[in-house]
Amino acid sequence: MATGGSAAMAVQPWRALLAAALESNAHLKHSSYFQLATVSVNGRPANRTVVFRGFQESSDNILINTDRRTNKVEEINHYPYGEICWYFTESWEQFRINGRIDIIDCSTRDLAKLQQREESWFASSLNSRLQYLRPFPRLPVLEEPSKDYQLDPSTGPVDSFCLLVFDPEQVDYVNLKRNVRFLFTSSHSSDQSTNVWQLEKVNP
Amino acid sequence: MATGGSAAMAVQPWRALLAAALESNAHLKHSSYFQLATVSVNGRPANRTVVFRGFQESSDNILINTDRRTNKVEEINHYPYGEICWYFTESWEQFRINGRIDIIDCSTRDLAKLQQREESWFASSLNSRLQYLRPFPRLPVLEEPSKDYQLDPSTGPVDSFCLLVFDPEQVDYVNLKRNVRFLFTSSHSSDQSTNVWQLEKVNP
Repeated sequence: MATGGSAAMAVQPWRALLAAALESNAHLKHSSYFQLATVSVNGRPANRTVVFRGFQESSDNILINTDRRTNKVEEINHYPYGEICWYFTESWEQFRINGRIDIIDCSTRDLAKLQQREESWFASSLNSRLQYLRPFPRLPVLEEPSKDYQLDPSTGPVDSFCLLVFDPEQVDYVNLKRNVRFLFTSSHSSDQSTNVWQLEKVNP
Repeated sequence: MATGGSAAMAVQPWRALLAAALESNAHLKHSSYFQLATVSVNGRPANRTVVFRGFQESSDNILINTDRRTNKVEEINHYPYGEICWYFTESWEQFRINGRIDIIDCSTRDLAKLQQREESWFASSLNSRLQYLRPFPRLPVLEEPSKDYQLDPSTGPVDSFCLLVFDPEQVDYVNLKRNVRFLFTSSHSSDQSTNVWQLEKVNP
């Protein structure tokens, strides 16, 4: 992949492009959904729709809630890389975001991470939280699911609740209305404390 | 993965579900777009939006047009498996379709396949065909692209035009409004001539 050179920049304008896309598509509920690709344990690609839960504070990391019992958690444990494909149906913009994924679940010991997981739990609606009480995903339906799961609003995250923290390393942006495409690639700063993003304009 | 047993069936109702989803979402241009995940040459997942070009005649194979110069063609040459994630924003249905991908391009020798490629070429609009004349995708923009690419409507497929034939092996269907999920898994019939699909109802 060709990057940088004279077009190198020290800012990350992909966040500005994404913020603008989110705003111009905000009237569409599905504008906060994207497709997350991972690699299955058998080596094959896997792909599913997930919900954008915002950015981690003071970083470019993307937050995704999921059920620890789903295949994707096993897949990410096995190979912690993913690619998000986020297509905005109103503005015809696509963000392909490639990066590394960290899993925060009930087995995590880092207290700051556990606090982040707790914040994500309480930031989701009670209805969303109730989903984590449902029968094991992808197992055969043994009985009609009862619809009266109960959860006290003050109860903390249940064991099946898992937070994915997606750390972007490359963003491939295309705008099909304006017919432009930008590649953003991150590298660590010389003191390793921050990411430096390089931008290149490429052919769509 | 658990399949079959008493719920086994010899029909492929996922095609009926997909036809119904396409019909109920037909007023949305983006309902014919889905995300195709593959595995990059470096092992990482890759994911992008592509356009559904229909089914191959007398089969369940899904047709996708692409530019031979894109990364996905190299990726599929290297590892010929993909997963489609097709989310219908109006009906809240998701189809995850896992399968093997065959590439038909200008280097293909099989005459029947080349004819299929030619049919796909002429089935797309002249505007779509013009895209295959544009500068090499993902290379740095060297000059402002000229907008006057010309192509005679009777001209056959250009070298960069490539047809992907996606052969589904498993379909994971979820309907978020009805809160139901079905897994469809194919196996060859005893004489290997056709696919037999098994259906299982699983927890969402």
